[in-house]
Amino acid sequence: MNDGTLERMAALLVDYGANVQPGQIVVIGSDLGKEPLTRAVARRCYRAGAHFVDVLYADRHVMRARILHGSDDAIGHEPPWTVSMPREVGERRGATIGIGGPVDTDLLTGLDPDRLRRDRPPGGREWLRIGMGGLINWTVGACPTVEWATLVHPGLEPEEALGRLWEQVEYACRLDADDPIAAWTERGRELLENCRRLTEARFDALHFAGPGTDLTIGLLPSSRWLGAEEQTADGLQFRPNLPTEEVFTTPDPLRVDGVVASTRPLELGGTIVRGLVVRFESGRAVSIDAAEGADMLRAQTARDDGGTRLGEVALVDGSGRIGKLDTVFYDTLYDENAASHIALGGAYPLAVGDPDERDRMNQSESHIDFMIGSPEVVVTGIHPDGTRVPVLVGGEWAV
Amino acid sequence: MNDGTLERMAALLVDYGANVQPGQIVVIGSDLGKEPLTRAVARRCYRAGAHFVDVLYADRHVMRARILHGSDDAIGHEPPWTVSMPREVGERRGATIGIGGPVDTDLLTGLDPDRLRRDRPPGGREWLRIGMGGLINWTVGACPTVEWATLVHPGLEPEEALGRLWEQVEYACRLDADDPIAAWTERGRELLENCRRLTEARFDALHFAGPGTDLTIGLLPSSRWLGAEEQTADGLQFRPNLPTEEVFTTPDPLRVDGVVASTRPLELGGTIVRGLVVRFESGRAVSIDAAEGADMLRAQTARDDGGTRLGEVALVDGSGRIGKLDTVFYDTLYDENAASHIALGGAYPLAVGDPDERDRMNQSESHIDFMIGSPEVVVTGIHPDGTRVPVLVGGEWAV
Repeated sequence: MNDGTLERMAALLVDYGANVQPGQIVVIGSDLGKEPLTRAVARRCYRAGAHFVDVLYADRHVMRARILHGSDDAIGHEPPWTVSMPREVGERRGATIGIGGPVDTDLLTGLDPDRLRRDRPPGGREWLRIGMGGLINWTVGACPTVEWATLVHPGLEPEEALGRLWEQVEYACRLDADDPIAAWTERGRELLENCRRLTEARFDALHFAGPGTDLTIGLLPSSRWLGAEEQTADGLQFRPNLPTEEVFTTPDPLRVDGVVASTRPLELGGTIVRGLVVRFESGRAVSIDAAEGADMLRAQTARDDGGTRLGEVALVDGSGRIGKLDTVFYDTLYDENAASHIALGGAYPLAVGDPDERDRMNQSESHIDFMIGSPEVVVTGIHPDGTRVPVLVGGEWAV
Repeated sequence: MNDGTLERMAALLVDYGANVQPGQIVVIGSDLGKEPLTRAVARRCYRAGAHFVDVLYADRHVMRARILHGSDDAIGHEPPWTVSMPREVGERRGATIGIGGPVDTDLLTGLDPDRLRRDRPPGGREWLRIGMGGLINWTVGACPTVEWATLVHPGLEPEEALGRLWEQVEYACRLDADDPIAAWTERGRELLENCRRLTEARFDALHFAGPGTDLTIGLLPSSRWLGAEEQTADGLQFRPNLPTEEVFTTPDPLRVDGVVASTRPLELGGTIVRGLVVRFESGRAVSIDAAEGADMLRAQTARDDGGTRLGEVALVDGSGRIGKLDTVFYDTLYDENAASHIALGGAYPLAVGDPDERDRMNQSESHIDFMIGSPEVVVTGIHPDGTRVPVLVGGEWAV
């Protein structure tokens, strides 16, 4: 990590990502072990004129204690204040900044999968509601830790691994640019231009073909492609993910057919899912198999009826920086921006242009992204009349 | 720290201190750096059948960022959820456990004293209200950290200092007993017996005489002595401080006269106050002088009108374990239980037996204890008719 890296990352998340406004209340969600970046972000928020900054540090050990020793009632319980807090943040039009990245993943291994499935971050649904409802401007970044670094670089000594991961994160977040915010503004323009072309193409479906993959994903008539940035109901722009390299839309949850092989491992609640193969029929995942970790994914998708249908399809071209690192990060924020992917679970309403069509999109409490793209996977667009045009070939845009 | 010390301390705080009941929600207030004990307490709560355990870790660096960089509005601001959280904990008849002990005291040195004075823990008044109102069962203990240990034992290497502090904390908390809870139950009986005798004596005033001290403190007609334990409005017993060696009551805020010299230094918001001398006239502290740190105490007591009047007088006899350690802990929980003390600021309603008399007790948002007792300080009780009887002489009860 170079001198000033924390400050540059904090400025990127606060000034560009969440776009914190003077007078706003900010809630920072972080984990124990991520103090240095968390504190730099809190300082930056106050310098940006935040009215108040509240930092919530989660402790995975406490979650472990709940799963291991909690009564049955304790699992999945939401004390009232964990729900009123996000509601009040929404009412006050606050901002939130998530400091992500895996923590102590081994703390959850070996725990009862059914209890793990039923457990959830208290207040999570309300946080999702205010985020999806455009009430807050928000962003999510990630903070390297020794635990994460040794997961990604198991062959290196811990400190060396941490240094290597920070280098990769700095590269992926374009902190090496003279002006990282200018660099992201330029990359954001490219992503928005890709969204515009894909939305105008009005494909009826996409077809993915590659090793182990032959999958057709239907789109809704008003599916529109989003990426790079969003805005609140009040019109304030923010950039929800940093880094971000994807463009995505909401598929038709009833028209997904074929088989798909994941191209990268997936970290899921402390379990690594490797060699995943999912078969779809009429939109539903009818079989979920994997070399490792299939049980965890099956449990997570069994939460509700929409858990086994698609809520997102996203395309990532080869010019993004994360794919170039050729590294598995075991973190959705980084891995989903390395390759095209799909998500089982809830869909994003704003990616459906016609509000009347939003009741056709998939509903679920879960949303699990997994990577299906690579230079060997060809993506083809299918028009309503059946004509086919190449979209992504060898990682390059053809549309 | 011996094997099992964390578990023994956690059991003492959860089972005996807060007396957590099956089905209760528990909020643990802790600081970064106190993870090992905090996690042991969370585990113990779940094993005791807690419905849910919420852990709030405070980060002094974030407070520092607010004082240094926050707008004027940010100082003292309470976002709505920081108030609704304690209100809801009270409504649900929850339990709270505070993991105290000094943290990073140097982080606050050199900051603007006026901003420090106006800053306060968000929600603090509401936490106080539900605690004073008997809505929750609660306790406060302390967790040794390297920062605290090097403050107490500056001549030792950090790890050695931490080991020494843990030994002292184990001794003070009677964790060396075969059954610490039985040992505290026995000590609690003694303290309650002292309370009974003092309350029955119906003193009109107490007189403290010793080196630099000649102070008379009037009591209210229905002042009653409390110690060791309390109970909630629903009748659930709990022990608010562990360790505890004091018995205390609420004085008459209009009848305090004379001069008092502190017998131990006082840690106050990161500042150490040494050599404190306070002069009282008709109940008000008319001069506050000190060899070090007087400004901080003057600023803290200037918050409101009651800040310079007494809200508590407490007696600690020489049989308590903390005094025997002959150590300044720079932590009120430990130091106030080493020696007799008084507090400038808000009074404790339950220590006034007649509810109609409670409007005579002192009101203030602050409550600052400082130590005025030692074996050289003689405490005398004065009856309404002017007769005087010895109360504490050479640290031994005479009453």
